[in-house]
Amino acid sequence: MNNSGNSHGVFITLEGIEGVGKTTIRCFLGEYLRRYNMPLLVTREPGGTPLADNIRRFLLNEHEEQVQPETELLLLFAARAQHLQNVIRPALQAGKLVICDRFTDASYAYQGAARGVKKANIAILESMVQDGLRPDLTILLDAPVDVCLARIAKREKTDRFESESKQFFNKVRSAYLQMAAVEPARFRIVDATQPLAVVQEEVLQFLPQVSKTLN
Amino acid sequence: MNNSGNSHGVFITLEGIEGVGKTTIRCFLGEYLRRYNMPLLVTREPGGTPLADNIRRFLLNEHEEQVQPETELLLLFAARAQHLQNVIRPALQAGKLVICDRFTDASYAYQGAARGVKKANIAILESMVQDGLRPDLTILLDAPVDVCLARIAKREKTDRFESESKQFFNKVRSAYLQMAAVEPARFRIVDATQPLAVVQEEVLQFLPQVSKTLN
Repeated sequence: MNNSGNSHGVFITLEGIEGVGKTTIRCFLGEYLRRYNMPLLVTREPGGTPLADNIRRFLLNEHEEQVQPETELLLLFAARAQHLQNVIRPALQAGKLVICDRFTDASYAYQGAARGVKKANIAILESMVQDGLRPDLTILLDAPVDVCLARIAKREKTDRFESESKQFFNKVRSAYLQMAAVEPARFRIVDATQPLAVVQEEVLQFLPQVSKTLN
Repeated sequence: MNNSGNSHGVFITLEGIEGVGKTTIRCFLGEYLRRYNMPLLVTREPGGTPLADNIRRFLLNEHEEQVQPETELLLLFAARAQHLQNVIRPALQAGKLVICDRFTDASYAYQGAARGVKKANIAILESMVQDGLRPDLTILLDAPVDVCLARIAKREKTDRFESESKQFFNKVRSAYLQMAAVEPARFRIVDATQPLAVVQEEVLQFLPQVSKTLN
């Protein structure tokens, strides 16, 4: 771990499709780790700074015109540049454990696999904005699309991404599983159809490794 | 002209620093050309679609946090991708004359020369978003920075760019003049310290060439 230009801290990302339980796990991890007085930053993408949060609202809202896939990709990386430079990098440099709900893997899955943006273009932006910084660990919460869509259906309001089709989410899920297969050293897959307590326990299994790195 | 993937129409851009008179010339050209019943689109960057106009407001407003140069660049290209795909390309394909107040040269001058973003990164985004489409003609309105700043000073309110320093605008102006020197076939420099009527006349000198291309 900590082998990708993160200087002192540890950078963990949570990934998975809508409705898979990322927000719940993010909040759980934040509360759990605070008990150990770990120097911690819990954040999410798109967002994480006031300006990046503005871009987030922008991305999630419905628009009167068609949002071009390249526009979406560039907005995401604009928010990411801001988030990295103003928030994530300073936290890592201060030796913090950074837990980020979604990161660049999401761009490959959503804008790349599902929206059809060229993978090479995403790689170019990744290299431009991240300059070698990558997550030390990525926890992929995985569940069949039907399960996740059933969870989303219970929400009062859905955003521009949540209202996408089943086919769209199948592409996103496949892309995530493929990335995890290509990079087994970085990814941990957790079966998110299990009861919440089991999911939490499995996620926590990865933490001793984290706390060792921090000490 | 019309040798850069513009299919049918002609693509003219106006460039120059704040206070040099671009808006005045853009409006003048629009009115003048409409008299000739030219199929015409007059637009500006950042902006040109409702979504891109939102990004414009975003860019021009002051923010509570420091806007990273990469963030600014990516936002500009996000707006540009939207503007190109939804507005400029369709207009050119319909055979229109497109006059655009600012385009990618401005990214090289402002974000590149003045803010210090790597030129290579701008070139990568240019190639990603424009896919070979470049202006047929660029009219550079040029005047010493002091002249332009004196004009800006008369405005009631200044935006995030207009409130930059003299040194900043000197860098922008030098970058524009350098680009014009490197690409004399595309650039026409107009001395914008001249009386407005003279500036207008000089700009119009380029139009016969345009109207020939349209016929």
